[in-house]
Amino acid sequence: MTNTNSAIDYLSCPRCAAKRSPHVVNQLCECGSPLLVRYDLKKAAESLKKSDLSGRAKDLWRYRELLPVEREENIVSLGEGFTPSLPLKTAGAEAGLSELYIKDEGITPTGTFKSRGAAVGVSKAKELGVRTLIMPTNGNAGAAWALYGARAGIDVKIIMPEDAPVITRNECAAAGADLRLVKGLISDCGKIVARSVLANGWFDASTLKEPYRIEGKKTMGFEIAEQFGWDPPDAILYPTGGGVGIIGMFKAFQELSEMGWISGKPPKLVAVQAEGCAPIVKAFEAGESESEFWKDSKTVAFGINVPKALGDFLALEAVRETDGCAVAVSDAEILMAMPELARMEGVFVCPEGAALYAAVKRLSKTGWIKKNDRVVMLNTGAGIKYSNVLNFSPPYIDADERL
Amino acid sequence: MTNTNSAIDYLSCPRCAAKRSPHVVNQLCECGSPLLVRYDLKKAAESLKKSDLSGRAKDLWRYRELLPVEREENIVSLGEGFTPSLPLKTAGAEAGLSELYIKDEGITPTGTFKSRGAAVGVSKAKELGVRTLIMPTNGNAGAAWALYGARAGIDVKIIMPEDAPVITRNECAAAGADLRLVKGLISDCGKIVARSVLANGWFDASTLKEPYRIEGKKTMGFEIAEQFGWDPPDAILYPTGGGVGIIGMFKAFQELSEMGWISGKPPKLVAVQAEGCAPIVKAFEAGESESEFWKDSKTVAFGINVPKALGDFLALEAVRETDGCAVAVSDAEILMAMPELARMEGVFVCPEGAALYAAVKRLSKTGWIKKNDRVVMLNTGAGIKYSNVLNFSPPYIDADERL
Repeated sequence: MTNTNSAIDYLSCPRCAAKRSPHVVNQLCECGSPLLVRYDLKKAAESLKKSDLSGRAKDLWRYRELLPVEREENIVSLGEGFTPSLPLKTAGAEAGLSELYIKDEGITPTGTFKSRGAAVGVSKAKELGVRTLIMPTNGNAGAAWALYGARAGIDVKIIMPEDAPVITRNECAAAGADLRLVKGLISDCGKIVARSVLANGWFDASTLKEPYRIEGKKTMGFEIAEQFGWDPPDAILYPTGGGVGIIGMFKAFQELSEMGWISGKPPKLVAVQAEGCAPIVKAFEAGESESEFWKDSKTVAFGINVPKALGDFLALEAVRETDGCAVAVSDAEILMAMPELARMEGVFVCPEGAALYAAVKRLSKTGWIKKNDRVVMLNTGAGIKYSNVLNFSPPYIDADERL
Repeated sequence: MTNTNSAIDYLSCPRCAAKRSPHVVNQLCECGSPLLVRYDLKKAAESLKKSDLSGRAKDLWRYRELLPVEREENIVSLGEGFTPSLPLKTAGAEAGLSELYIKDEGITPTGTFKSRGAAVGVSKAKELGVRTLIMPTNGNAGAAWALYGARAGIDVKIIMPEDAPVITRNECAAAGADLRLVKGLISDCGKIVARSVLANGWFDASTLKEPYRIEGKKTMGFEIAEQFGWDPPDAILYPTGGGVGIIGMFKAFQELSEMGWISGKPPKLVAVQAEGCAPIVKAFEAGESESEFWKDSKTVAFGINVPKALGDFLALEAVRETDGCAVAVSDAEILMAMPELARMEGVFVCPEGAALYAAVKRLSKTGWIKKNDRVVMLNTGAGIKYSNVLNFSPPYIDADERL
């Protein structure tokens, strides 16, 4: 029974300013907004020094003072986090930049950044005594929560569109989750989840309907700051669906700034979407504080096919407060950028990650990104989870021939 | 132009004791045996202390004094190595063990441990001025060498059976490799490679035909030693196809022992194969020093479908010298162990990794593994690269229903 030394203080509502206890199960605020975790950052700054980090394990739990789990025995870990920030010299030069990096979230359990949210979300659910959780998913989040839930001994129920990637379906099923397929969209799955929660009292692990997934995602911001020697880069591009990552990173830089660990302006946060589903981009350009439901959304980047995000107002705030921007790229650009990055740099990214490189090229051309800016692309997952996106027809060679 | 401080000394033949220079391109020894890299371990022990490691990056290059690359600018890295060694309490208890661990090589670039061999092999090839390399592959090694080769700017030619996993085919093609498919086995691919090398003078990157891939793989042994506080576990189980990993780990423990970093007996190394392709097991049981070609080999664990390994004699030596053993498990056991590990522990392993858990259960039952032995299973890759191995038929739910 070891204390993690977490500086967690309370939950607060970013819309109506309500306060909630972190020691009981919480879902949305009564006003309908997601709740955010607040820490005693003064206490954290006293108990944790930058130099303490060097001796710690290479996973996201190295920042445990700034995470919500209070007892070490509740930590459910598969070794997630501390993914590398790799320099992309060739791809950078090709885009006219001298310092382009990719933070590669493909190198993590379950192959996507969803493992961060699941690790922290499931750990905190375990700490709060949750026995059964349910969620709708487009695939990767469900796979992560199913596997972390299995490790935690929590019953997991997953509702997934039948069109979601078969790999993620297999991950859920192998983990022993109660998996149901729906002839419909994730919004239909969400309605099934809401009804089931109401009827059975289960924990609703839908995106942002519980306060802790975002705490896992924010560690991407901590890691970028640490990996850049506490002098964060000028801009971070993020493929924006539900937007939890961009909200989380904004929160991370705010916390580090308040602790005095970083100074100056935080990195400009850039929300990248697909032209076939760009509600955040549309709202950003129109100066709106919330997005509108994007009808008939469609993109090859399945993970950012989110027509209306619950946390859209928080994502837009993160972009605006950091002087960032929002950009939409086409599926054609995405499908071109995937093999470009593999050929030039050896990184095989997911379509969502590839969208970032298309955006970098565009923003460099318009001058929004400057030649000497230090720019990080946050690749959210491994290309190997999207085997059906690219189609190649390699030539054959006869067994008795040679090259 | 920074020196890595590599203690590389020379190449030696483990069969005929010939010595070769590490500063020119080498393939097999003239006697037909693979060549091994030898270091000045006295120099390494003087220049590198255990305490130096804590401040280094969490990748395999933290052991650069004991790796063959001599100039930092030749290091081709995608962030590979230092994968976690996770405790498996439930699966351990189920098998009658108090300390079972999995070292999860799925959490690495390209999703398999092949990234280690490719990182070091490609880096050294770059250092030696190699411009074009060619190799036969059952999939994952080709994918890794194609991607690392792309990052290094080396032309890569891959010959692959048409039955190899489509994901790995896409990785090679996306990386821009010259990929050719063969209606045949990897042995047919090997013949095409040999003919092409002879005709064109390309570098032959076939398993163990160049000396450096094994140096990448050996870092798994370094990491296990470090992760266990320099008191290595009692046994390590390894899914054995070509056997490079088991040879490499044996070499790693020898080097650490010679440097005085570990003492006592090294971990017992256990070669795990599939019943449908078990040449090492057969040779081990017969007391032979080499294996015989396994006819009509067949197993769901594609990565260990290697009917005759070039380094079989070295793998058998590693097993015998460490008082290890060799075990074959059935495809049925493998297909059962995959979801077992996912359900009990949240780890979604490849079939090769699942074979290890089947072997653990058997060895624990026979008493070969003792209840309190510290046992590590070396899972060589992510289950997500093998999406077609498991077949689930999840039930549907109507969009207007609930659970």
